[in-house]
Amino acid sequence: MPLGTVYLVGAGPGAPDLLTVRASKLLARSDIVFHDALVHPETLSLAARAEIVAVGKRCGRHSTAQRFICKRLVDAAQRHDIVVRLKGGDPMLFGRAQEELDALAAAGIEAEAVPGITAALGAASSLGVSLTRRGIARTVAFLTPRVGRGETASEWLPAALGADSIALYMAAGASASISAALVEAGKPAGTSVVLVENATLANESRTFTTLGALLAADLPRAEEPVVMLVGDVFRESARAAGNPLPEPATRRSA
Amino acid sequence: MPLGTVYLVGAGPGAPDLLTVRASKLLARSDIVFHDALVHPETLSLAARAEIVAVGKRCGRHSTAQRFICKRLVDAAQRHDIVVRLKGGDPMLFGRAQEELDALAAAGIEAEAVPGITAALGAASSLGVSLTRRGIARTVAFLTPRVGRGETASEWLPAALGADSIALYMAAGASASISAALVEAGKPAGTSVVLVENATLANESRTFTTLGALLAADLPRAEEPVVMLVGDVFRESARAAGNPLPEPATRRSA
Repeated sequence: MPLGTVYLVGAGPGAPDLLTVRASKLLARSDIVFHDALVHPETLSLAARAEIVAVGKRCGRHSTAQRFICKRLVDAAQRHDIVVRLKGGDPMLFGRAQEELDALAAAGIEAEAVPGITAALGAASSLGVSLTRRGIARTVAFLTPRVGRGETASEWLPAALGADSIALYMAAGASASISAALVEAGKPAGTSVVLVENATLANESRTFTTLGALLAADLPRAEEPVVMLVGDVFRESARAAGNPLPEPATRRSA
Repeated sequence: MPLGTVYLVGAGPGAPDLLTVRASKLLARSDIVFHDALVHPETLSLAARAEIVAVGKRCGRHSTAQRFICKRLVDAAQRHDIVVRLKGGDPMLFGRAQEELDALAAAGIEAEAVPGITAALGAASSLGVSLTRRGIARTVAFLTPRVGRGETASEWLPAALGADSIALYMAAGASASISAALVEAGKPAGTSVVLVENATLANESRTFTTLGALLAADLPRAEEPVVMLVGDVFRESARAAGNPLPEPATRRSA
């Protein structure tokens, strides 16, 4: 029996038209799509003739276990030619793609990844701020900081401290402890921070602040996806937004 | 006189269909396009009714000075509604976008950035390797190392050392000195390296090696764009490619 191909596809940062042309064509040809919760409905509607299956963390009371997702992808490839696994952002950056690629390889199923715009780069374009402004920043770190839950900051702190600009994913609910770890380790309290919620979408909102101002209290854990951007490249944009630094966090809509 | 809008658009990592849908539509509507040398001809052909102007580093005997590019963008916005500045990869990562955005802002011209897939993420998808494999890597550094030319490794080394996976842009001609700096600073000589040339294009080629093996001599400065990926996440893919580590650098086509 001929096996299908599984495509791990990046859905991009939010806005449906920030999908790649390749991903758009693949969705149109797909037989079945397994998608994360954060994928835009318009993007899903491109898969006009496909069965659509939500497997993201927000689709039920608890997350669909990763192992179960892997099994479903393998099963789907036995029945369909074109199976799409659609992930927010880019599949190869914080996407848990490797578990799925390994499971598919172990089952002898062909797999291919299609890159997507990652949230931090979507947010940088939205803000109109280069992450590598000449003379200010030439290195950028992308990371997921989990503090608490038995994990220590030491796992991500060296990367964050070494880089001129930092993009932190899945960080919003822990912004105080992240800022504390950075400031304790020597990052100036006046370092600019922008929290971008729903980057590139019509309801994008931005909070311009500083590490020092964030020390006071964790922002409430956002319902929507947030990327936390840290670095001196954001100083000017905070000024332009009318938030002279260092002031307490204030929120502005895009 | 009404002024036009300048769009700083990411052309993606190489393959024309890895352009975003938004960029594709903008090109079709554009009046004039200023592009880098690395943009694919098929991508340029989307700008069917636009004047096409090459301003990249390879379009003449020497690079068009950045200040001159800024001036041309400002001038173009006086004469055209839709001006596109098309850059390889993503405009906000190593794209020198900020100089152009600042010049446009100073001239009172509206500007907007459209993100693109950056080379390292294009290469990761091509390789089928997640940059953040669970249990191996949770932090990624993106940087441009220049060693020699009066710049010191100390400017980029902390970011590289702190991160689990490293993506180095514009690094190919200096791979020996980069590897030496990393190994001297404590990165194991056995750390996997993949040099990906022409990522995502039909003529993509990959060199699987290690930091230690690269110490011997700089690879010849490539004519084509190369991204240098460093980290333990690439160990398995090097094995799968039939290059047991640590061996001298060998080249394989995709």
